[in-house]
Amino acid sequence: MYKLVLIRHGESTWNLENRFTGWTDVDLTPTGVEQAKQAGRLLKEAGYDFDIAYTSVLKRAVWTLWHCLDQMDRTWLPVRHAWRLNERHYGALQGLNKADMAKQYGDEQVLIWRRSYDTPPPALEATDPRSERSDRRYRGLDANDIPLTECLKDTVARVLPFWNETVAPAIKGGERVLIAAHGNSIRALVKYLDNIADDAIVGVNIPNGIPLVYELDADLKPIKSYYLGDAEAAAKAAAAVANQGKA
Amino acid sequence: MYKLVLIRHGESTWNLENRFTGWTDVDLTPTGVEQAKQAGRLLKEAGYDFDIAYTSVLKRAVWTLWHCLDQMDRTWLPVRHAWRLNERHYGALQGLNKADMAKQYGDEQVLIWRRSYDTPPPALEATDPRSERSDRRYRGLDANDIPLTECLKDTVARVLPFWNETVAPAIKGGERVLIAAHGNSIRALVKYLDNIADDAIVGVNIPNGIPLVYELDADLKPIKSYYLGDAEAAAKAAAAVANQGKA
Repeated sequence: MYKLVLIRHGESTWNLENRFTGWTDVDLTPTGVEQAKQAGRLLKEAGYDFDIAYTSVLKRAVWTLWHCLDQMDRTWLPVRHAWRLNERHYGALQGLNKADMAKQYGDEQVLIWRRSYDTPPPALEATDPRSERSDRRYRGLDANDIPLTECLKDTVARVLPFWNETVAPAIKGGERVLIAAHGNSIRALVKYLDNIADDAIVGVNIPNGIPLVYELDADLKPIKSYYLGDAEAAAKAAAAVANQGKA
Repeated sequence: MYKLVLIRHGESTWNLENRFTGWTDVDLTPTGVEQAKQAGRLLKEAGYDFDIAYTSVLKRAVWTLWHCLDQMDRTWLPVRHAWRLNERHYGALQGLNKADMAKQYGDEQVLIWRRSYDTPPPALEATDPRSERSDRRYRGLDANDIPLTECLKDTVARVLPFWNETVAPAIKGGERVLIAAHGNSIRALVKYLDNIADDAIVGVNIPNGIPLVYELDADLKPIKSYYLGDAEAAAKAAAAVANQGKA
């Protein structure tokens, strides 16, 4: 039996401002830093240890991992960055306020943009200054691999190759894996691991900064999964995520 | 022509307490954190950028790198940890106060322990609780590769394979390299790069948290080297390092 731990980054400045973030590279808030440290303390107290950690190329996930590792006295662990673990790209909504958009377009439209499995938000223009196509961190990618918008289906499609080619072989090779990532890249993994239907994943929300543990069998099929720490607090935090897009 | 940047970690808690540290894994002080951030700001303002960063498995160097990368907006850069970049092992002196030792054994004996090229300090017992032989981060190593004490000559001997097998090929391959390490692992590199005689390296001191730039030719021979920022401040900081072992 294997264990895998997933953790969504702590609160970011744009979580706090209730803005669509996507691939925009915003910092953790002081609360987010504290959540990350608390996650590390929880993991340490519960006796978890890791051999390798994966994160995205976005600093809110990277810093969450770093603070978490520091609390576990594991700053020396190998860390690998992967753009495939990035948050879902939010297209032309990146930077805009979720409640403003709900006032303007209605709660339902915003819920579709936030949670529809296969309807992406309006795309960025490739020439939009917000586009990541000129960002050096993505220079090794084919321009077509750098999204201008994504629905969750698109995110699943680009997260899964990373799971299949990198994470799954590491776990089967006996490495204890910690992944610090984002609400939607983690939802993509959860959908895949728990085999959740396209129309049911809308109800799954990932709270910030709470370790999500998967116990996996020899074929990496989940035996069970649970949040570490206070279950009620985790449920409340997930519900708060669900409510972010309301006017 | 290539550029390589070396940076010694910011002030650590044991630098502040004037204790021999070696492989003991102590934290940065708030001053050390600020030095690391300032190093990142200096590098960014001077237009430096990197493709890969190397550091030791000791948190004072790792955190120095992380803060430095954050200031450069490069938290997404690949970072590789290497035990071969660790500080010189200080043997049975690890944890003891430098000035106390100078009072007890005399300035000259402490200078020999601190700066002799080929006389190591007294060795730790392998069973000493301070020994790193049971530390999980070194589990991949042959026990004989985990020192019980080191003179600088020993440190040079274990740093150079990392230079030859990893850093030099990366630089020649066109990668811009940043190394965050320690006073003596950096002295080992400086001695090698500048071809400094065994009896002259004693006069070379590396200040905390100031980027040291090497301009290298096609064979990685130094064309010149210099500290970034205020040259006088760097000289003062290096002199302060030289004076740490006096009663």
